[in-house]
Amino acid sequence: MAGNSIGVVFKVTTWGESHGKATGVVIDGCPPGIDLNESDIQRDMDRRRPGIGESSSPREERDRVEIVSGTFEGKTTGTPLSLIIENEDVKSRDYDAIKDVFRPGHGDFTYHKKYGIRDYRGGGRASGRETAARVAAGAVAKKIIHAEGISVVAYTREVGGISVKKIVLSHISENRLCCPDMDTSAEMEERLNEAKRKGDSLGGIVEILVSGCPPGLGEPVFDKIDADLAKALMSIGTVKGVEIGAGFQAAGMSGSECNDPITTEGFLMNNAGGVLAGITNGDDIVIRIACKPIASIEKKQQTIDIQKRPQVVSVMGRHDVSVIPRIIPVCEAMVSIVLADHIMRQRAIR
Amino acid sequence: MAGNSIGVVFKVTTWGESHGKATGVVIDGCPPGIDLNESDIQRDMDRRRPGIGESSSPREERDRVEIVSGTFEGKTTGTPLSLIIENEDVKSRDYDAIKDVFRPGHGDFTYHKKYGIRDYRGGGRASGRETAARVAAGAVAKKIIHAEGISVVAYTREVGGISVKKIVLSHISENRLCCPDMDTSAEMEERLNEAKRKGDSLGGIVEILVSGCPPGLGEPVFDKIDADLAKALMSIGTVKGVEIGAGFQAAGMSGSECNDPITTEGFLMNNAGGVLAGITNGDDIVIRIACKPIASIEKKQQTIDIQKRPQVVSVMGRHDVSVIPRIIPVCEAMVSIVLADHIMRQRAIR
Amino acid sequence: MAGNSIGVVFKVTTWGESHGKATGVVIDGCPPGIDLNESDIQRDMDRRRPGIGESSSPREERDRVEIVSGTFEGKTTGTPLSLIIENEDVKSRDYDAIKDVFRPGHGDFTYHKKYGIRDYRGGGRASGRETAARVAAGAVAKKIIHAEGISVVAYTREVGGISVKKIVLSHISENRLCCPDMDTSAEMEERLNEAKRKGDSLGGIVEILVSGCPPGLGEPVFDKIDADLAKALMSIGTVKGVEIGAGFQAAGMSGSECNDPITTEGFLMNNAGGVLAGITNGDDIVIRIACKPIASIEKKQQTIDIQKRPQVVSVMGRHDVSVIPRIIPVCEAMVSIVLADHIMRQRAIR
Amino acid sequence: MAGNSIGVVFKVTTWGESHGKATGVVIDGCPPGIDLNESDIQRDMDRRRPGIGESSSPREERDRVEIVSGTFEGKTTGTPLSLIIENEDVKSRDYDAIKDVFRPGHGDFTYHKKYGIRDYRGGGRASGRETAARVAAGAVAKKIIHAEGISVVAYTREVGGISVKKIVLSHISENRLCCPDMDTSAEMEERLNEAKRKGDSLGGIVEILVSGCPPGLGEPVFDKIDADLAKALMSIGTVKGVEIGAGFQAAGMSGSECNDPITTEGFLMNNAGGVLAGITNGDDIVIRIACKPIASIEKKQQTIDIQKRPQVVSVMGRHDVSVIPRIIPVCEAMVSIVLADHIMRQRAIR
Repeated sequence: MAGNSIGVVFKVTTWGESHGKATGVVIDGCPPGIDLNESDIQRDMDRRRPGIGESSSPREERDRVEIVSGTFEGKTTGTPLSLIIENEDVKSRDYDAIKDVFRPGHGDFTYHKKYGIRDYRGGGRASGRETAARVAAGAVAKKIIHAEGISVVAYTREVGGISVKKIVLSHISENRLCCPDMDTSAEMEERLNEAKRKGDSLGGIVEILVSGCPPGLGEPVFDKIDADLAKALMSIGTVKGVEIGAGFQAAGMSGSECNDPITTEGFLMNNAGGVLAGITNGDDIVIRIACKPIASIEKKQQTIDIQKRPQVVSVMGRHDVSVIPRIIPVCEAMVSIVLADHIMRQRAIR
Repeated sequence: MAGNSIGVVFKVTTWGESHGKATGVVIDGCPPGIDLNESDIQRDMDRRRPGIGESSSPREERDRVEIVSGTFEGKTTGTPLSLIIENEDVKSRDYDAIKDVFRPGHGDFTYHKKYGIRDYRGGGRASGRETAARVAAGAVAKKIIHAEGISVVAYTREVGGISVKKIVLSHISENRLCCPDMDTSAEMEERLNEAKRKGDSLGGIVEILVSGCPPGLGEPVFDKIDADLAKALMSIGTVKGVEIGAGFQAAGMSGSECNDPITTEGFLMNNAGGVLAGITNGDDIVIRIACKPIASIEKKQQTIDIQKRPQVVSVMGRHDVSVIPRIIPVCEAMVSIVLADHIMRQRAIR
Repeated sequence: MAGNSIGVVFKVTTWGESHGKATGVVIDGCPPGIDLNESDIQRDMDRRRPGIGESSSPREERDRVEIVSGTFEGKTTGTPLSLIIENEDVKSRDYDAIKDVFRPGHGDFTYHKKYGIRDYRGGGRASGRETAARVAAGAVAKKIIHAEGISVVAYTREVGGISVKKIVLSHISENRLCCPDMDTSAEMEERLNEAKRKGDSLGGIVEILVSGCPPGLGEPVFDKIDADLAKALMSIGTVKGVEIGAGFQAAGMSGSECNDPITTEGFLMNNAGGVLAGITNGDDIVIRIACKPIASIEKKQQTIDIQKRPQVVSVMGRHDVSVIPRIIPVCEAMVSIVLADHIMRQRAIR
Repeated sequence: MAGNSIGVVFKVTTWGESHGKATGVVIDGCPPGIDLNESDIQRDMDRRRPGIGESSSPREERDRVEIVSGTFEGKTTGTPLSLIIENEDVKSRDYDAIKDVFRPGHGDFTYHKKYGIRDYRGGGRASGRETAARVAAGAVAKKIIHAEGISVVAYTREVGGISVKKIVLSHISENRLCCPDMDTSAEMEERLNEAKRKGDSLGGIVEILVSGCPPGLGEPVFDKIDADLAKALMSIGTVKGVEIGAGFQAAGMSGSECNDPITTEGFLMNNAGGVLAGITNGDDIVIRIACKPIASIEKKQQTIDIQKRPQVVSVMGRHDVSVIPRIIPVCEAMVSIVLADHIMRQRAIR
C-alpha cells in the first residue's frame, strides 16, 4: 500500500535510497525455468549508467547487479528473485549544505510534509537512483516478453525543443542520445551542452515502441493495458505526460479520421496505438512521454528552508543536464514489466 | 486481478454490461458515519445522463441509483456499499445487425481475441454505460474529499479543435458543454451539430482542477499520486493522453523555467501541477486529458467480421457525437476516487 | 482492505446486511466460456436454507439467486459476475428490543467499538446471512474445480459432543445433518432437540474432504494452500479451530510416525492431509473445523448495554440450534473458492 | 500473487533460499519516525538461532541482520526497510546425496511438481531458514504494537505428548524450551533427548498470548483478525492446526457454556479468545498451534526418487529434534505482523 510495488502476477518491489548501502528489487512471481544470470541484467544496467558525454553526470556508479536468490544453476526457480545493487562512490558530504533547504522541483518539500522526516542525502528515495532497480527488474521482464515474440524499444523524439525529423530505428544505437535520427542527434547534443554551460537543464520527449505484441493483453475496465502503461511511465519521477497512439492529436480528429479501418491484412492505420478498449489489438503499441527538465540546476533559485525562511539555492552536485538518454532503459523497463505482468495475467484465465 | 477494481483502501469494484439487467458498484472501505442517501449520488448521475441537445444520444437512461447495502439510518456503517443502477430502455434488437462485425475503434475485436466470447449488445462491458457505476462511486468519494476541504471540478478545454480562450469557472455550469468560456461554448456546439449532420463524431480535451488539496498525499515510487491519477483517467475508454501541470510543454522548457520557485507564501508558479515527486505539494492539481472522437459513427467504415470477411459498417444506434460533456462527471469521479483512497492511505501511516 | 474480498485471481467480494434489501457477491476473474445459469447456483443455496427440522430456524428465506451480469447466452464472458439474493421475510421489529444491548457471543460489542455505529437488525453484516453470498460464489468456483476433476464434500463429524463412529460418504445425503454415519445421525438429532427445548445451542465439528486434487497447487511461503484454507474457513463466523491431516494429533507423534512414506503407488498414509510445504501432493485434502455453539440462545445471559449498564438478555428471534448442518455448504464453498483461485494462480506461472 | 508477501498496509515480503548467499525481507508500509537499529532486531534473531542443547542443530548460523534501507539517523523514514541476513556456514555438499530423492514429510515432491525445478540444497525456499526473515520483520512489527500497549508472548504447551501442568509466564525465559512450567520443562528435555538418540523427532503445541490489545481490530468478513492469524500461523511450515480461545473444545459446549458473559468490568470468561465476529474485544487473544514433528530424521524411511524408483532414505544433515523452541519467536513474529497490519488498517478508516 506504500506504493513500492508494481504488478499483480509479476510483482516488482524496489527499495533503497540514493546514499544508503545499496538499492535493490524483489521480483515475486517470475516463472520457473528461465535462463537468467547477472550478465543478462547488466547489459541494461550499463545503458542507464552515467555516460561520459559532456552533459552527463560525472558521478561514477558501476551499478553491478547481484542475483542473491531465486535462481539455481542459472535458471529461475519460481521463488523470489532478489537483485541487489551496491551504492558505490557515495559522497554524502555533497549534500550537507542543502539539508534544510527545499530544492525547487524536487520532492524535498513534499517528503517533509508527508513523513515529517527525510533522508536528504541525494534525494534519498526520490532520487533517480531508484530507477536502477527498475531497470534490473525490467531486464528480467524482457526475458518473459521476448519469449512471446515481443520487443520493446525506446528512443528520443525531442530534447530541449528540438524534434527528430524522421525515425530510423537502426540509428538509435549509433548515438549517445538514442535518437532515431542521426542528424538531429548532433543538434540535440549541442543544445544540451549549451544548457550545461548556463548551469541549466532541459526536458524532452521519449517514444516507446512495442512490436510483436499478441492481441488480447490487458484487462478491460480499470486495468486497461494503456492505463497500466500510463501509470508505470508516469511513476518515473520526471514524467509529466503520457499519450498513446494519436494521443493529444486524437482530440482534434473526427471519428472517421481517428478510427483505424480493419482489413483482412490488419489495421490500416494505428491511431489506436495498438490498444482498443484497453486490450492490445496485435498492432504496435506506440507511447510517448513528456519529461520535464532535471530539477537540479546550478542557476540560482528562490526557495524556503525547513523554518520557512527565504533562501536562494544553487544545486551544485554532479547532475545530468537532461534525463535523456538515461531514462530510455527505464522506460523500456517499465513497459516490459507491465507487459510481462499482463502476459501472465492472461495465462491465468485461458 | 481481472481489473474491475480500483483503489487500495477506498476500493471500488464495478460490474454490469450495457444491455444486462443492471450495472452497479461495490465500494469496500468507505469510512463509517458519513451521511449518505440516494439523492447525494443522483445529482452526479444526472450530469452523466444523455442530454437533450441535438448532438446528444436520444436513448433515455434514467440512471436511478439504489443503495442496497452499507448504510443504516442515512449513514455509512463501514460495511460494503452496494449501489445498483437498473438498465432501462434497453433495445437489444438495435445491435443484432452487427453482432459478428468488429466495429472500428471499438473493443469488439479485442474482446473477441481476449475472451473468445463477447456480449455484443451495445458494447457489453466495454460500453460507456460502465461509467455510470464510476460516477456513483465518485459521488461517495466526494463526500470524503469534501470533508478534507478538497474540491474537484472538470471542464471542457477543447472540442473538435476549438479551444477555450479563457477559463471562468462560473461559466461552467451555465452551458451544456461545461465550458469555462461561454463564448467558445456556442462555437463548440455548432461544430458538434455539424459533425452530427455528417454522421461523424468529435474528440476534445478536458481539464480537471483540484483545489484545497493538502500536501503529503501520494506514495513516492510506483503509486505516485500523478501515476494513480493518470491510470484512473486513462482507464476511461476514450482517453488517449494525460498530462499534469505543464505536461507536454514541460518537455520544451529549461529547468530554470520549469521549476516552481518556493516562497513563504507558497509556490510562485504551478508547472508542477500540484505534485512534486509523486506527492501533493498543497497547490492546485491540474490535469488534462485527450479524448478521442466517439467510435460509433454513421459514416461507412471498412472492417472485417468474425469470419475475417471484409465488411462495410455504419453504426446506426443512438450515439452521442462527442464524449464531451458526458465524460466531465466521469473525470471528476475518477479523480475523487483516487484522492479519497490516498487520503485514507495517508491516515494509515500517520 | 476492508476485508470483504477473498481470492487473488478468482476474486470474491460479498456485500449486504441481514435485514437490508439484498445481499450479493461480485466475482471478478471468472474464466470466460463456462456454462452457468441460476439453477446451477440454486442447488447449493437450497442446501444452506433454513430446514424444516425441529431444531432449525423457522424463518423462511427463499434465497433466490439472480445472475445480473457476467453471463451471455448461458456462458460466462470473463467480465464480473454479479449475483444478487433478495432478502425476503425480513421482520425488523424482532430486533428492536435488543438494539442497545450487546448480545454475548455476538459481534454487537466489537462492531460498536470498531465503527461507532452499527446496523443492529439481525446482526447486520455479522449475521450468518452473509454466508448466502459465499455459497453462491462457491457454486461458481465448483464449476472451475470440477472441470479439473476435483470434488469437495463436507460432512458432520460431531454435534454436541456426539461423534461419528464411521465415515460412509453415501450416508451424507441421506440425513438432514449431513452425517456420514446414519446411526449417529439420529443420536445427534436427539441431542439438538434436547438443546432446543432448553433454549440452548450446540457446537460441532465438520470435516471437508477434497478428492482428485492435482499436485502443485499452493504458493510456498505465506499463501500456502493450507494457510489459505485455514483463513477461508476461520473467516466463517462460528469457526474457532482448523486442522489439516493429522492436525492436533501430529503434535503428539514422532517423525517416523507422522511422515507419510512415499511409494511408486503414492503415499502410504495421509497424515499430511494432502499438503506438503504448503503445496498439494495429489492426495486427498482433509480438513476439520471446530464450530462453536450458536451465540443466540433463549436462556438468560448476563451482559451490558451501550451505556455500560448491566442487562439480562434472552435472544428470542428465530434461530437455529446449531450451525450444523447449514454450515456444510458454506465450508464447501470456501474450500472451492480457495481451490479455484489457486488453480488459476498456477496457470499464470506455467 | 506468488505468495511471498503478507500484510496489506504493513506489508512483509521475504526472499532467499537455505543455501543461497543470503535471505532477507522487505517491509513496505512501516510508519516513519520509529526508532530502529540492528540490535533491536538482533534480539529476536538470537532467540531463533540453533541452540546449544543436545537436541538442537549444531549448524552455526550467526543470523546477523543488516538494515540496508529505510532508516536515517536511527529512525524509520516511511520508505521500504530492506533487512538482509547473510547465510554463513553453508555446507552444500551435505545435501548432494539426496538431490534426486523426495524426502518424506518435506516439500521436495511438491516443489518438483509445482515448478519442475528446485533448489534441493537444504530445502531451498522450503527450509525453516526462511523463518529468519519473518523474525526480523516481526521485530519491526513489535515496535508498532508495543507503542499501542500490546505485547505478544509465545510459549510451549506440549512436546512429544508431554503437556504443561500450569502456566507461569515468568518461567518461560528460565528454560531453554520456553516452557511456562519449569517442572515439565525437564521432562520435555528428556523426551527430546530420547528421540534424538533414536534418530527420530517430535512435535508439540505452542500457545500465543496477546495482552493489551485494544478492541476494534480486524475486518469483519474475510479478513477477520482470527482468520488472518490462522493464515499467518498456518503458513509456518510445520503447523498442522490452529485454534483460538476455547478452540476445538468449543465444539462440545452449549451456547450457555461457551458465550462469555459481559459485565461492567469486562468479560467473565474468555472462550472467545479475545475475538468476537472477527474483531478484537479488548480481552487477551489466546491461540494454540499444533506443530508436527520435524520431517528430517535419521531413521530409515521409504520413498521414491525423481525417476519414480523406490528408495530408502536416512536424512543425516544437522537437524533439530523438534521445532520447539525455535518456532517460538517465529510465532510471535507472525502474530505481531498481523496485529501491526490491522492497527494500521484501522487507522485508515478512523
